[in-house]
Amino acid sequence: MISTFSDRLITEIENKKSHVCVGLDPRLENIPKHIINDCIKNFGPTPEAVAESFFLFNKKIIDAVKDHACSIKIQIAFYEQYGYLGVKSFKKTIDYAKEKRLIVIGDVKRNDIGSTVKAYSLGYLGRVLINDKEQSIFDVDCITTNPYFGSDGILPFIEDIKKYHKGIFVLVRTSNKSAIELQDLKINKRKLYEIVGELVNKWGQNTSGIRGYSSVGAVVGATYAKEAKKLRKLMPNVYFLVPGYGAQGATAKDVVECFNKDGLGAIVNSARDIIFAYQKQPWKNQFSEYQFDEAARAATINMKNEINIALGEAGIPIFS
Amino acid sequence: MISTFSDRLITEIENKKSHVCVGLDPRLENIPKHIINDCIKNFGPTPEAVAESFFLFNKKIIDAVKDHACSIKIQIAFYEQYGYLGVKSFKKTIDYAKEKRLIVIGDVKRNDIGSTVKAYSLGYLGRVLINDKEQSIFDVDCITTNPYFGSDGILPFIEDIKKYHKGIFVLVRTSNKSAIELQDLKINKRKLYEIVGELVNKWGQNTSGIRGYSSVGAVVGATYAKEAKKLRKLMPNVYFLVPGYGAQGATAKDVVECFNKDGLGAIVNSARDIIFAYQKQPWKNQFSEYQFDEAARAATINMKNEINIALGEAGIPIFS
Repeated sequence: MISTFSDRLITEIENKKSHVCVGLDPRLENIPKHIINDCIKNFGPTPEAVAESFFLFNKKIIDAVKDHACSIKIQIAFYEQYGYLGVKSFKKTIDYAKEKRLIVIGDVKRNDIGSTVKAYSLGYLGRVLINDKEQSIFDVDCITTNPYFGSDGILPFIEDIKKYHKGIFVLVRTSNKSAIELQDLKINKRKLYEIVGELVNKWGQNTSGIRGYSSVGAVVGATYAKEAKKLRKLMPNVYFLVPGYGAQGATAKDVVECFNKDGLGAIVNSARDIIFAYQKQPWKNQFSEYQFDEAARAATINMKNEINIALGEAGIPIFS
Repeated sequence: MISTFSDRLITEIENKKSHVCVGLDPRLENIPKHIINDCIKNFGPTPEAVAESFFLFNKKIIDAVKDHACSIKIQIAFYEQYGYLGVKSFKKTIDYAKEKRLIVIGDVKRNDIGSTVKAYSLGYLGRVLINDKEQSIFDVDCITTNPYFGSDGILPFIEDIKKYHKGIFVLVRTSNKSAIELQDLKINKRKLYEIVGELVNKWGQNTSGIRGYSSVGAVVGATYAKEAKKLRKLMPNVYFLVPGYGAQGATAKDVVECFNKDGLGAIVNSARDIIFAYQKQPWKNQFSEYQFDEAARAATINMKNEINIALGEAGIPIFS
């Protein structure tokens, strides 16, 4: 029997004793100079050079963090802004991470209705049919999506989650300031994000694995601990993908609310603070630009420990 | 002075006496056999063959409809499902349509926050910076986006709308059945989509052209005429992008509610019923598979006339 996405994720978390998801969100201005200069030498100052530099950078980061991160999340916007060659680099990064047996989350926030959302689903999670031959395209383990269309925008993904043993994370309560403009609006006594949370519960029915967690997860920002606590209670079987750690201001103590009493239920993402750790204190004093990957490893281990310690202090069992 | 997106769109509408937006949403199973077979002969049964067949198909459609459509909308999901080569075909289609002086809407529904949404904005509407050199990537006239993050997800686009004279259409009230699950929820006495509509009004301030319409538009489904009427009143200066015509069930009479008394304010999209008209009655009897482009032209002219007649019957002034 093939495991569900949720079971595979939990296995990785336990194997690595880590709730850390590393975000591969490359920014040209932060890529070490020796990498980008080499690429510009080969391809000129072109989107191709940038795309190649991202892939070379990512490979080193993946090698460095793979034993300490339960998953990686690749934000496609940073690649897609350089056009189809950026998207090619996104795909090469997916393949390399999977080769290293990492769970890969495509942070694409794709959503639409009918045959359109089905196209996204087949391209990212399933397989497309060409001349009676099924072919994988992006083939990530999981993607992020948006709930605004309601069930019509989600159910086509659910079919493929079941068929291909994949997952999705639906935006529920995001980590940005203006999240309140829509997500916190009150409908009778409930807020909009709670209603979305209940829909996520419903959408995830029959996608759970032997560990009891559904394969339809929720994006829940760590910057709002009160909301996270409420949602944790409302969605006990739903895995949370938690952005906002580090650069966006949330600490290990803040994210504790996203976990269940079993020590599971959340993965915490950090991008800039890990992949560009070499530019930030305290790592900047310990590692050179050429050691950006070692700095990223140190930052990942540090974040892993911070979260595990905070969980322990909150009386939540950590890995035995 | 360079015109705003809204002014450029209105000029095209008036030049062509057409409110029709043709949706280039290619589906492998509907592409004429002679096109796809040729591509498979050249590239094998691969994503590359599909991507190339889409581009060859689109070129013929663009040539056929360019004098009768005010704009084209390209749904990226149908391309993206075939990976980066699909995205390359999407870009080639954009370039070809712009060469033919068509207004191009990228139906990408991209949204995120902070530097992530800025990356989308630069990639689709603006220019990216590589080694001090600004470069256009997708360079469409306008994209679609999702309001769930609130202003944080929209304001980065607004900057580029002003700087690059581009536009966006924000999902407000969509044409699918489950739209009611979130969009119709009641907050005090207003529905969620009305609150989004008011935000769209606000976001569009200072993006209007000499014709008085903002360059921040709204996606308003034609399948719900009552809601459209309410939104038309709420957002008098906002252009509507109206999906749902034809295949999704809305008629010319239904879309009349999306227009203002000045005969402007909406563009109506149809995809399948136009681009695959050769497979449908009454066109199927008049055109062969090899004449798919002529069938598309006939269907576009027919839709253009249907809408203009319905507007006239409703007492809305049509083109002089």
